[in-house]
Amino acid sequence: MKILIKGCYLLQEGNTAVSHGDVAIQGNRLIQVGQAGKLPPDWQPDQVIDGEDYLCLPGFVNCHTHAAMTLLRSYADDLPLMEWLEKKIWPMEARLTEDDVYWGTMLALLEMIQSGTTTFCDMYFFMDQVAEAVEQSGMRACLSRGLIGTGPEAESGLEESREFIKKWQGAADGRISVWLGPHAPYTCPPDYLDKVLALAQDYNVGLHIHVAETRDEIAQIKELYGKTPVEHLYDCGVFQFPTIAAHCVHLTSRDISILADTAVAVAHNPESNMKLASGIAPIPQLLSAGVTVGLGTDGASSNNNLDMLEEMRTAALLHKVNEGDPLALPALQALKMATSEGARALRLEEVGALKPGYKADLILIELNKPHLYPRHNLAAHMVYAAQSADVDTVIIDGRIVMEHKKVLTIDRERVFQEVEERVQRLLSEVK
Amino acid sequence: MKILIKGCYLLQEGNTAVSHGDVAIQGNRLIQVGQAGKLPPDWQPDQVIDGEDYLCLPGFVNCHTHAAMTLLRSYADDLPLMEWLEKKIWPMEARLTEDDVYWGTMLALLEMIQSGTTTFCDMYFFMDQVAEAVEQSGMRACLSRGLIGTGPEAESGLEESREFIKKWQGAADGRISVWLGPHAPYTCPPDYLDKVLALAQDYNVGLHIHVAETRDEIAQIKELYGKTPVEHLYDCGVFQFPTIAAHCVHLTSRDISILADTAVAVAHNPESNMKLASGIAPIPQLLSAGVTVGLGTDGASSNNNLDMLEEMRTAALLHKVNEGDPLALPALQALKMATSEGARALRLEEVGALKPGYKADLILIELNKPHLYPRHNLAAHMVYAAQSADVDTVIIDGRIVMEHKKVLTIDRERVFQEVEERVQRLLSEVK
Repeated sequence: MKILIKGCYLLQEGNTAVSHGDVAIQGNRLIQVGQAGKLPPDWQPDQVIDGEDYLCLPGFVNCHTHAAMTLLRSYADDLPLMEWLEKKIWPMEARLTEDDVYWGTMLALLEMIQSGTTTFCDMYFFMDQVAEAVEQSGMRACLSRGLIGTGPEAESGLEESREFIKKWQGAADGRISVWLGPHAPYTCPPDYLDKVLALAQDYNVGLHIHVAETRDEIAQIKELYGKTPVEHLYDCGVFQFPTIAAHCVHLTSRDISILADTAVAVAHNPESNMKLASGIAPIPQLLSAGVTVGLGTDGASSNNNLDMLEEMRTAALLHKVNEGDPLALPALQALKMATSEGARALRLEEVGALKPGYKADLILIELNKPHLYPRHNLAAHMVYAAQSADVDTVIIDGRIVMEHKKVLTIDRERVFQEVEERVQRLLSEVK
Repeated sequence: MKILIKGCYLLQEGNTAVSHGDVAIQGNRLIQVGQAGKLPPDWQPDQVIDGEDYLCLPGFVNCHTHAAMTLLRSYADDLPLMEWLEKKIWPMEARLTEDDVYWGTMLALLEMIQSGTTTFCDMYFFMDQVAEAVEQSGMRACLSRGLIGTGPEAESGLEESREFIKKWQGAADGRISVWLGPHAPYTCPPDYLDKVLALAQDYNVGLHIHVAETRDEIAQIKELYGKTPVEHLYDCGVFQFPTIAAHCVHLTSRDISILADTAVAVAHNPESNMKLASGIAPIPQLLSAGVTVGLGTDGASSNNNLDMLEEMRTAALLHKVNEGDPLALPALQALKMATSEGARALRLEEVGALKPGYKADLILIELNKPHLYPRHNLAAHMVYAAQSADVDTVIIDGRIVMEHKKVLTIDRERVFQEVEERVQRLLSEVK
């Protein structure tokens, strides 16, 4: 399939200037972006998209979520963390079936595609169903089976992870990559982490783990091991593997050095951290130290959406006020965190930027909106003014998955109906 | 005109439960809302709106903005405050004509209506043009001519304010109320404030003023008067008049007591305060003290949109993380700040809630969206998950001003064209 997007707005790399140009896609690759790249002389597109009044951006990379938790969106809010988890979230999660996870993930995929996300990094359970939903939707994903070393599923989780890697690594034309998902230092004791790392070694995969999310975790790990979570995981050898560390809210300067030295990437989830009152991650300090930082929404039950435009804005605003510096996390930096840096965090090569040779993962933003007028600075517009409903068209791996706001790969009404029925069942079960 | 909205979702007052019911409008008033109120036996609507899958909410009240600054949206971002003002904002503002302000306000009105705002509180200049735009758009507004006592327009501003009150107070079928707009304690010396207060006395109007926005202001007022801005304004007699104090970021506990004792209302602008790194206003403390707190967006040049759903979410998230308390500013409280408390802040009676006898200012939110599924808690959905494009229909003072996302009272294409031409002219002038 050859697609030509004609005359769209394009951001220049590294500054706020814009240009007008064409974007050409062949198969799953970009072959021309504005002045960069070259079309063969006889190149004829199968489909032409009029780009006038649209800004073309790389698709967003959501570096940390639990997709199927859309089923619990707004089910429990404005509660203390442990009450939220123990009385609300865990009893519901204990009742989720494979099919529930499939349909919850489908709802998440529908929402993510509509809001311009083209890659996401997920940690949950019943991952075969998650992978099936990803394959069908056309999305790109990095998937991990969440592993808890202290519970009854410690060993079976490892076995499931092994099977999951064997079955799905590189599947869906390479759109699916599989990592391991040791949940957190406080749920995975060192001897269990050893087993996880052995598996990572066997299959040459990376690790997706929650790190230093709350003050309670810091206290708990300190008491158990006399170290910070980052020091502890480093000493356990975790960071010898490609790692994405979600949250990293409470870090020492030594922690930051360790993350930088070991090339651990951080998934920053500002809205979840704010909503659960976990704290504010030291993102400017991590960036200064050279750590790769991507953005994530976390699950919909602590956000309560999967909207990366909103997450960018929140990140950019939050660090300004937290640092007392209106220059902290400028728009271009936030935009990079949501795109190219996110792809780098997930170790996805040739993803996250609009460059010839890169995977054709891109979105078109409709600019003819009152809140996007006048067009002084489109990068600032995206971070400070846009909303996800401005996303008009989404292309992933060269395939149009949303066209003029209609998701082509998912049956929206079926998803709503399945989700509604399943939620009613779950609610009656926990009553 | 009699309008019946059939079978929409309605939030119950004071809790997160929802009901289904009808909303009946006659003239500019609500006469029935769900079970409350009663229709005359022979009552026949002129228009019926199908409310299935829509949530009916009071329209949002934006308590502090400078509407025409939409012309400067994303014109200057990620800059230090004084450089932002002196090198970018002020040179542009100095070149604005009456017609520029009219069209900039029209752009703001278009954006506000589309995002569900039905009342706004504005402080700017060329206010006749602002009032004309408000009248034509169908919006409700509280308007003030900004007054700077230290500049060349000190006296003429007072005279303009007097004429503005005489001409526009209660105009547009009562949709327009006029207040006085002494800009801030650092731009209005005490003898000038005396003149403003005399005018307020003459015409029995309230005051809209910026207070305690930045640390620099605190230091400056301390140096000039040996007091905090709130103490100083109190001593000047300002708070004897109905007052809305925008920002109130840096307050002492004595300041909070003064605001509570004098029934000064606060317009909280979290996104502007974050973007300019001004600080975080002590909203939970103000609410505990019994101060009325409304929400505002501030101007589009420091936000960069006029989106009250976003402002609600940001407020709810920001105070949770700032207090370290996931129970701080729960969803219902944020929703009240954006509606009924905002109306109370502007001293608008019978506005800001869905009750029989109240003004018919309401919005319908389309719920059939992936990010609003499932429907566990619609109040939480509004604050934590919704976006302004979910607003489908807007009724102000009993008139449908937006129907299925089409604003009926403003020529959108004309606004875009006028804004574009004016901005190009302004840019060429400041070059």
